[in-house]
Amino acid sequence: MADKFYSERNLKFLLYEVFDAASLTKYDYYSEHNKKMFDMVLAEADKLAKKMMRPILEEMDRNPPELEDGSIRVHDDVRKILDECGKGGWITASKPVDHGGDQLPLMITDSCQYIFCAANYSAAVYPGLNAGASHLIEEFGSEDLKETYLPNLHNGTWQGTMALTEPGAGSSLSDLETSAEPTEEGYYLIRGQKIFISAGDHNCVDNVVHLMLAKIKGGPPGVKGISLFVVPKFRPALGGGLEPNDVVASGVYHKMGYRGAPIAQLSMGDGDNCRGWLVGEPHKGLFYMFQMMNEARLGVGLGATAIASAAYYAALEYCRERRQGRKIGQKDPTQPQVPIIEHADIRRALLFQKAIIEGSHSLLLQGCKYADMMRVTTGEEQERYSLLLDLLTPVAKTYPSEMGIQAVSQGLQCFGGSGYCDDYPLEQYYRDMRIHPIHEGTTAIHGLDILGRKVVMKEGKAFAIFKQEVLQTVQNAEADSELKGFGGKLKAALEVLDDATRHLLNLASKKGPEYYLADATLYLELFGIVTIAWQWLVQGLAASKALSEGAKKKDVNFYNGKILTLKYFYAYELPKITGLSIRLLNTDGLTVDLDTAIFND
Amino acid sequence: MADKFYSERNLKFLLYEVFDAASLTKYDYYSEHNKKMFDMVLAEADKLAKKMMRPILEEMDRNPPELEDGSIRVHDDVRKILDECGKGGWITASKPVDHGGDQLPLMITDSCQYIFCAANYSAAVYPGLNAGASHLIEEFGSEDLKETYLPNLHNGTWQGTMALTEPGAGSSLSDLETSAEPTEEGYYLIRGQKIFISAGDHNCVDNVVHLMLAKIKGGPPGVKGISLFVVPKFRPALGGGLEPNDVVASGVYHKMGYRGAPIAQLSMGDGDNCRGWLVGEPHKGLFYMFQMMNEARLGVGLGATAIASAAYYAALEYCRERRQGRKIGQKDPTQPQVPIIEHADIRRALLFQKAIIEGSHSLLLQGCKYADMMRVTTGEEQERYSLLLDLLTPVAKTYPSEMGIQAVSQGLQCFGGSGYCDDYPLEQYYRDMRIHPIHEGTTAIHGLDILGRKVVMKEGKAFAIFKQEVLQTVQNAEADSELKGFGGKLKAALEVLDDATRHLLNLASKKGPEYYLADATLYLELFGIVTIAWQWLVQGLAASKALSEGAKKKDVNFYNGKILTLKYFYAYELPKITGLSIRLLNTDGLTVDLDTAIFND
Repeated sequence: MADKFYSERNLKFLLYEVFDAASLTKYDYYSEHNKKMFDMVLAEADKLAKKMMRPILEEMDRNPPELEDGSIRVHDDVRKILDECGKGGWITASKPVDHGGDQLPLMITDSCQYIFCAANYSAAVYPGLNAGASHLIEEFGSEDLKETYLPNLHNGTWQGTMALTEPGAGSSLSDLETSAEPTEEGYYLIRGQKIFISAGDHNCVDNVVHLMLAKIKGGPPGVKGISLFVVPKFRPALGGGLEPNDVVASGVYHKMGYRGAPIAQLSMGDGDNCRGWLVGEPHKGLFYMFQMMNEARLGVGLGATAIASAAYYAALEYCRERRQGRKIGQKDPTQPQVPIIEHADIRRALLFQKAIIEGSHSLLLQGCKYADMMRVTTGEEQERYSLLLDLLTPVAKTYPSEMGIQAVSQGLQCFGGSGYCDDYPLEQYYRDMRIHPIHEGTTAIHGLDILGRKVVMKEGKAFAIFKQEVLQTVQNAEADSELKGFGGKLKAALEVLDDATRHLLNLASKKGPEYYLADATLYLELFGIVTIAWQWLVQGLAASKALSEGAKKKDVNFYNGKILTLKYFYAYELPKITGLSIRLLNTDGLTVDLDTAIFND
Repeated sequence: MADKFYSERNLKFLLYEVFDAASLTKYDYYSEHNKKMFDMVLAEADKLAKKMMRPILEEMDRNPPELEDGSIRVHDDVRKILDECGKGGWITASKPVDHGGDQLPLMITDSCQYIFCAANYSAAVYPGLNAGASHLIEEFGSEDLKETYLPNLHNGTWQGTMALTEPGAGSSLSDLETSAEPTEEGYYLIRGQKIFISAGDHNCVDNVVHLMLAKIKGGPPGVKGISLFVVPKFRPALGGGLEPNDVVASGVYHKMGYRGAPIAQLSMGDGDNCRGWLVGEPHKGLFYMFQMMNEARLGVGLGATAIASAAYYAALEYCRERRQGRKIGQKDPTQPQVPIIEHADIRRALLFQKAIIEGSHSLLLQGCKYADMMRVTTGEEQERYSLLLDLLTPVAKTYPSEMGIQAVSQGLQCFGGSGYCDDYPLEQYYRDMRIHPIHEGTTAIHGLDILGRKVVMKEGKAFAIFKQEVLQTVQNAEADSELKGFGGKLKAALEVLDDATRHLLNLASKKGPEYYLADATLYLELFGIVTIAWQWLVQGLAASKALSEGAKKKDVNFYNGKILTLKYFYAYELPKITGLSIRLLNTDGLTVDLDTAIFND
């Protein structure tokens, strides 16, 4: 297998040269850190990824989780990984010091998670879930819940989960049916079914702690009646120790990919003895959950980008080594064959992957920086970062997920028939990758989110700020003789997006929300391309600056690569907005008005 | 599993209403047939597919071929399927009566193969290979070879293969190294390795007969020295019976999908005792093989379309049944959820699939009709069909393969998380589908074929005829008040293609073939979209005619569906040519001139 699964050089370029992560340490909250410490953390993540996660990438895929004797059996090393992530402080790294954490910026901890995901996506999911589940208890739970659950979630001996989805409530959370009946003892009796619960049960931990959405009996219907509970697999017993809590792993999914992580069906309260403890106030479950959504969704984009990165470096290595055919025009069969990287179409395929991956990565770190800045700013400045993050989260989740699939597919194609077989990791990456446009909200849901909610929130304030940011980059490009032209193209692209937005808002007022939102998925695609074009210019400017300031010889190729990939993106990817815009400016209502009987025969 | 995997109604619409398959029976060669017989053949294919192939779709996937004791073990039913296909005359159906066949048009036999592929792609491959391998012997083999091999290939007790690819010769066939040494006994001694040989060995036949490319020692280098041999696994022994022929199945690939068919590595002559018999003349192997290429490549497009069809009907059924969410604007959570087909984005996803599948299917039957007409015409008319088929084959192979992947992916997405799990067949279709842009020439190879060879052959004659055909359809649309506008759009699209072609030819003369062909893959994509837009207008005109002539009530929805999907294609898919054209009119030579050192870090 290819040794390289991510580019340390690129990661540091983004962190330090593009987004100046070191500048965060000027703020009180991050003042205990410095760039050297960030680098040490990243180096440790690299070590852990290579030592514990990467070696079992294939094993985890080939021996997927199975339900055996009421518990889901996973790869033995999961226990070691959770243990190491607990001991090494990886689960708590981003948490405040007073929650037992290291108070590291999200830019750094998400970069570590990126390294883990690129090494072995399934393996990285287990500790990541603990960080999320414990976060909810830290933020909204009682002292009692904190004492009972946090230590073992933090040290990795227990598994945390997010238990939202049900058979009748996937995209439509308002239709949750899991019920919570208050008791005089203070806990609630939980009854219901959950499906698609990541790490919902497995044999490498001593307990599983579900952060579960349920409806308190008698509460309001729909999303307003959803509350958040801690529902453990084993609950504290009177007199110490743990006892079963009537949570049964009723099934495990057999998935196309992402097979190292167990996705479970759970049944609660079959014996009328499943207890849940309310987190925070009643009926605020969705509100609490959504506090974490932006970060969780950045996490999906990050995971998608990481898998695409691993696929890309495998393909790159193959393209340098595999000899096949000759340069066009060279027809002499007695001449040796050339490495396929000499063929223009292979170069296009590699540039495509590089453009998608590094463009996505840039946007994701941009999002992390907004989140970090929200923490250390107040008032209007804080609102600005918050709005930018809210607006761009659907893009940062979806673009890497959708385009990452295409990137991995192009990587697979570079291998020809070998890409389709399990002698190389590409076929696994292709399978692993496909989950991303589905989990944490499907692409369609994010389309509705950006167009139906984000673009219009606060009378369009977030969108207005976004445009300012992009135009600032356009202005920065003005001063750069080589990149000035790209500034002009970006400005024109932003206008295309702006026109489409205005057209759709106008449609909304004339024909109502169904017509307005009918092509929201395509609108999100358009938004994504413009956003990534922006991020490529941001990167190009940083590279251009480095070159003009006399970059070290060993770095010149890297910076030239950035500028070339920027050119690639503007020449090959950005023009796609033209076709999308033609569609979005149409008002035929084709999909709204159709009679579904046309699908009959 | 969804019962429906293809639309009989659509198949018959294409065969009879769009392409008038019955008209073929006016020609002597097909005069023994009539529409009723065609329908009977199709009904028998449907029966066979449902009885023998469909039921083992999942079983074949879950228990993929394994090399055991020197032979590859496949699903037991493969023997029954080959037997049935032999007895029922399916292997020989398209062959001339004097070759033991039924002399059926390719339009009909490929439609049967379409039904088989939609039912179970892997299962359909075995008999299909026999038809191809025996065809080469029929056309170019000696009487002796015909007597020895044809009966058992035709009756399905032996397996036929095409053995081209080698470790060092995939896309670059000129680099074949398998050698053939003449002997005084008339046969040749074969030595070499073959890889990726479909059905290259298995335990459900008594013999495997490879139609193998090899180089006769002392022959010219490159493609000019390639000859075609019959190399059986067991050869006729002196005194009757069979004896081993020193062909060893040295490995079987573990593939992501398409797992019901064994793809083998073969080693010939390890014991210096592998005999091959020359087919036709020396050094003409590639020429013979290419006689079959168009049909083989249509076959790949057909298989891709068929898998996408099965995925689409499964998704359609799910979208009608699965209830999730409410109409936009309907926020009352006490109201029941609606079937997801009520959501605009789901409708868009279904129309996308329908547009890709039925557009591809139309083009494939168009190609079959050209092949059938070539058989019954002469002179200029025949040349016209031949040129059209040559030109459109790369499109008919690639568009369904590439866009079929997107179609299946959209089908999977309709299922949400369930699409990613093996409770539904979508995840299998997604895996099965990915082979198509790879086998029978990768997409890049077909890009080079259409732009480097087909568009320029005979001084552009094929391309000129193609434009005439499209403009004829534009003209036909003039008379249709509803579809006239689409004629105008198609004409404009053809001009975009023509402009890009002229621009590239100009580039070729100015900067040479490398720059000319650098974006051939994108040129093929552009060509594909324009071609499918043409086929949709062809279909739309047939539907419009039927409606205006007073279609039966039960057919009105079907025809309306055709017209709506035509509109969909022109509104959502056709605009993509704008972005492609922007790229193709660029002359930056980005991928040709780049220094691959930019990929270093």
